[in-house]
Amino acid sequence: MIIVMKAGASPGEVERVTDRIHELGYQVHLSQGTERTIIGIIGDERPLDPATFEVMESVEKTVSVLQPFKLASRDFGPENTVIRLNGLRIGGSQLVVMAGPCSVEDRNQLLETAHAVKEAGASMLRGGAYKPRTSPYSFQGLGLKGLEILAEAREQTGLYVVTEVMAPDKVPLVAEYADVLQIGARNMQNYALLHAVGRSQKPVLLKRGMMSTIEELLMSAEYILSDGNYNVMLCERGIRTFETYTRNTTDINAIPALKHLSHLPVIGDPSHGTGKWPLVAPVARALVAAGADGLIVEVHNDPEHALSDGAQSLKPERFADLMTEIRRIAEAVGRTV
Amino acid sequence: MIIVMKAGASPGEVERVTDRIHELGYQVHLSQGTERTIIGIIGDERPLDPATFEVMESVEKTVSVLQPFKLASRDFGPENTVIRLNGLRIGGSQLVVMAGPCSVEDRNQLLETAHAVKEAGASMLRGGAYKPRTSPYSFQGLGLKGLEILAEAREQTGLYVVTEVMAPDKVPLVAEYADVLQIGARNMQNYALLHAVGRSQKPVLLKRGMMSTIEELLMSAEYILSDGNYNVMLCERGIRTFETYTRNTTDINAIPALKHLSHLPVIGDPSHGTGKWPLVAPVARALVAAGADGLIVEVHNDPEHALSDGAQSLKPERFADLMTEIRRIAEAVGRTV
Amino acid sequence: MIIVMKAGASPGEVERVTDRIHELGYQVHLSQGTERTIIGIIGDERPLDPATFEVMESVEKTVSVLQPFKLASRDFGPENTVIRLNGLRIGGSQLVVMAGPCSVEDRNQLLETAHAVKEAGASMLRGGAYKPRTSPYSFQGLGLKGLEILAEAREQTGLYVVTEVMAPDKVPLVAEYADVLQIGARNMQNYALLHAVGRSQKPVLLKRGMMSTIEELLMSAEYILSDGNYNVMLCERGIRTFETYTRNTTDINAIPALKHLSHLPVIGDPSHGTGKWPLVAPVARALVAAGADGLIVEVHNDPEHALSDGAQSLKPERFADLMTEIRRIAEAVGRTV
Amino acid sequence: MIIVMKAGASPGEVERVTDRIHELGYQVHLSQGTERTIIGIIGDERPLDPATFEVMESVEKTVSVLQPFKLASRDFGPENTVIRLNGLRIGGSQLVVMAGPCSVEDRNQLLETAHAVKEAGASMLRGGAYKPRTSPYSFQGLGLKGLEILAEAREQTGLYVVTEVMAPDKVPLVAEYADVLQIGARNMQNYALLHAVGRSQKPVLLKRGMMSTIEELLMSAEYILSDGNYNVMLCERGIRTFETYTRNTTDINAIPALKHLSHLPVIGDPSHGTGKWPLVAPVARALVAAGADGLIVEVHNDPEHALSDGAQSLKPERFADLMTEIRRIAEAVGRTV
Repeated sequence: MIIVMKAGASPGEVERVTDRIHELGYQVHLSQGTERTIIGIIGDERPLDPATFEVMESVEKTVSVLQPFKLASRDFGPENTVIRLNGLRIGGSQLVVMAGPCSVEDRNQLLETAHAVKEAGASMLRGGAYKPRTSPYSFQGLGLKGLEILAEAREQTGLYVVTEVMAPDKVPLVAEYADVLQIGARNMQNYALLHAVGRSQKPVLLKRGMMSTIEELLMSAEYILSDGNYNVMLCERGIRTFETYTRNTTDINAIPALKHLSHLPVIGDPSHGTGKWPLVAPVARALVAAGADGLIVEVHNDPEHALSDGAQSLKPERFADLMTEIRRIAEAVGRTV
Repeated sequence: MIIVMKAGASPGEVERVTDRIHELGYQVHLSQGTERTIIGIIGDERPLDPATFEVMESVEKTVSVLQPFKLASRDFGPENTVIRLNGLRIGGSQLVVMAGPCSVEDRNQLLETAHAVKEAGASMLRGGAYKPRTSPYSFQGLGLKGLEILAEAREQTGLYVVTEVMAPDKVPLVAEYADVLQIGARNMQNYALLHAVGRSQKPVLLKRGMMSTIEELLMSAEYILSDGNYNVMLCERGIRTFETYTRNTTDINAIPALKHLSHLPVIGDPSHGTGKWPLVAPVARALVAAGADGLIVEVHNDPEHALSDGAQSLKPERFADLMTEIRRIAEAVGRTV
Repeated sequence: MIIVMKAGASPGEVERVTDRIHELGYQVHLSQGTERTIIGIIGDERPLDPATFEVMESVEKTVSVLQPFKLASRDFGPENTVIRLNGLRIGGSQLVVMAGPCSVEDRNQLLETAHAVKEAGASMLRGGAYKPRTSPYSFQGLGLKGLEILAEAREQTGLYVVTEVMAPDKVPLVAEYADVLQIGARNMQNYALLHAVGRSQKPVLLKRGMMSTIEELLMSAEYILSDGNYNVMLCERGIRTFETYTRNTTDINAIPALKHLSHLPVIGDPSHGTGKWPLVAPVARALVAAGADGLIVEVHNDPEHALSDGAQSLKPERFADLMTEIRRIAEAVGRTV
Repeated sequence: MIIVMKAGASPGEVERVTDRIHELGYQVHLSQGTERTIIGIIGDERPLDPATFEVMESVEKTVSVLQPFKLASRDFGPENTVIRLNGLRIGGSQLVVMAGPCSVEDRNQLLETAHAVKEAGASMLRGGAYKPRTSPYSFQGLGLKGLEILAEAREQTGLYVVTEVMAPDKVPLVAEYADVLQIGARNMQNYALLHAVGRSQKPVLLKRGMMSTIEELLMSAEYILSDGNYNVMLCERGIRTFETYTRNTTDINAIPALKHLSHLPVIGDPSHGTGKWPLVAPVARALVAAGADGLIVEVHNDPEHALSDGAQSLKPERFADLMTEIRRIAEAVGRTV
């Protein structure tokens, strides 16, 4: 950490800062510039709170030198992490496509959609049994019944199942039915929940909060990793900006940025990233072209009668077309689907 | 809800939409403009999902007519809600000032700070026993021990206690020690937690998420109200914007906007709203001038040794000065402290 | 336009609104819902200012039915606009790649870079002679001398030249040297400048403001089109969001959204969109995969000695690699470079 | 400037950076931490472009030590700048209130409004003769005729006149009629225009761009100051965020932040800051409570018939009430109106 002193800070004020640093068990490196004194802190700065120094009136600002995440960083894992689910590899040269409806609504809807996405080439089935909804008056999911339907679809199709868990005490139950536990965007900083999935050994799909930076996403991954669960996928699903034509703004920059900063697999979500089905296919192609390790796409057998997110769901035939396009892009970047 | 059809939508396409509306149990009002056909849906639109129609290719967009929140709205409560805590009234003509450290760190720190804020005129003590921290390596709070220290401070000073609860299963425990349950910004859309505090009968301080809209804040309040707990205070604590000089951007517009849209009391948090102690006093004055019903302010007896948020904490003597300023502004807007 | 009245608006208040509509020469369509009265305005709403009605106390809100742009819209141009520059076609099936340094710094730098990008397959040379810089103390461009160097590079290489014009009175001069006039992001709503390039007949590359919505970008294009200059390319170059790891956030959604809303060619700028050269190639691939009609990329023969934007400039050999990747992606989406 | 090297940077890579620093005429201060090498540059860093170093592959990041603005900074002007307009002082203990319509629409409208705001206690008249409008089809202002009407209003009322100038070549004309030249938010980084008003000696009201940082606002002021015009007022008029209930988000933090960083007077604009007249009075009070040196408020004698911005304009009687409230708040913070 580097501390920049205010112009005209007195030797006594500088000493007060360096004393505090020594008190905390660190060494000091002093540099006297033409306009400012700069104090470097030598040692692992991660446990230090910049506020310790910012609160001193003689301090202008502090600057962190190290990234605050460790286990999630490229320094820690120079090789890409590949998550194994029996035969499936996530984070390797083959892309993983997860597809299915926003919510599990009933047995027929899910099974019909599951067979359709399987046939088009998806390898994992998505579908919410527990739904976080902005309004208490909206459909909140089928709960346990939804989990059972998902399990039945897995048996029939051989697709793996990814589904959201919303509360720490539900983790064991959801883990019984799902192959991958999804942490939704609104829960990215729900630390009690991060600890609960960290202590389970199930792979986790961690969605970026709509209001969260790339660094914060990696810090939330760090929570799960530091509890001993290394099977974490990061998911870019669009951030909130001033643009209102689309539901969110897909942060395409985040795909190569996350691959650069971390060894964890990165999944793109063009459905939430755009919120409009006509934009899903072009943005899905873009995510793969930018280096995503997989996609999660909303597909519904009858979007007009969907209980949630119909406007961003693809019909099965459009999803099949998308898979064809994705295969071509994957090939162009040296990968397979 | 209003549905705008695309230019050139055929009579058959219009009929398909109106059929769907009738199927859902609503009546239709058709209007043929010069460039577009517009379809009005007659009846309570709140249970309707706009996506039901947006997914149809002939539909250009939908527009909601009604606000999605009901119990939290001004229509529902033309009179301001006043929350009673024994002698204290929140939401009346007297402002409520909550003050104390970010975290409860130890007995001395909390008691010393509590006595100082009491003497300066605060009526409620804040202090976190469970702390949501971006990093798993940061201080996470004292937990139960912290709650016990808060209760001791209440006994010694007569201050009411507000403290954060982070997980649904901790609500009964925290409710035993606290007078007001705080839902933090990161948990504003943690619906399992909202239900848990909704089912308790403790007053709730609901903080706005750092990237949540005013409408979403009111929808989260609606969750708590719809569970039968009407004692909800809304808290503006700064939103995330592109500006990085300050930690957050205090949304001062939200104060009169919330008072206009809702009957619930509105509290301002100038500490998180700015993240820099020299800005806390001017922004605290502004919040009161804009019509806030109270303030929540971080005060620490020794900010340089704080384990969290030191940079935005006031020393007790600065807090006492702030109280003097606040009294003058309160008087200027016809209120008392 | 649709006007939603407040709950409980009296017949007299409704009449006052409808009288005002008639006074403005429009017809009225009245709809009495269960909770609100809704007033539709029949006729071309574009000249109407919603504020005319929003200022009335009985009005809750107004909703526009039509998009505010006309000449730039898909309704107006169902066929894609193809801009012709002698042999070059912009907006057709062949992608256009514009490349070159941020600023023209000297003759050697520009000529060396121009030859390199020509060889790699670019068809247009970019380079700023007039530079908008945040600081008055930064390099502001070579001005006329820069234009002359650009013209020389065109002669030597056969590349077309695109360069920025910053003030209305400089349009004739820049138009003498350039093939395409660039309006920079900071000037997207500099209406005096938009009129000046609108009155010239040179093709225009209109960059989206970093703070501008898709709709506002199209409204700025509308200014140029309504002055009779139909040769406008839209350029997505990243928007400002809360994310600070990258300089801007490339709005990849905007590529298909603009193609959907408008007939004008759409160019992507991965250099400004990311601000970091290691992210330029993946994001360039993504822009093409999403449907962009071309790219504008910063290339510098010696980025370490660049006077501006070095951190986002590619070295010529990296640009050549990028061209190879782009050709593969273009083929995957059925286009050529 | 501080340069953080990547983990594992070799001695040769460090030398290459220090060589480049010496080549640019600066001295080097080297610090070897436990995980990173840090290189300090000694000397005035303002002319340096961080990209010079960021482009090197061994460099992780650079950090600026000094603020990039000089003449606008508190270091440069420890005393507040007070701008003198004959009898009027802007930036002293007395607040300045500027009021009037968005646009000058006709003689009667302006004169009636001018007399009303004068009577209520305003000291300056605002009104646009040249209007920047998002749509080319909206009213664009009366131009010269509008300036003449403003001048007549000044003669009749004694109010000073502030009005916007949109193009460099119009500065002499507008300066002939106006007492203060306004640079609108969309033109905050129109550098040709900044130079033009910098070379005039008229006081300038510089509005913050709707997505410009506090630092960028001060850099734009620096352009004007560095041309020798020291009479610059900064204006906070709301920034663009994700919140859509209000037109903009008034950045109340910016008021004390600007007073802290700069010696220039700071004016608040609650009309554009909110976009809704019912919010104007509470936010105006907040701006004064936070330390603004003045306000600029939209007032229209007949907002329902306004040609622009009616929804955020106050009627004269509401403005008179606001002046009464403002006087009380001013007194509470030790100032007068």
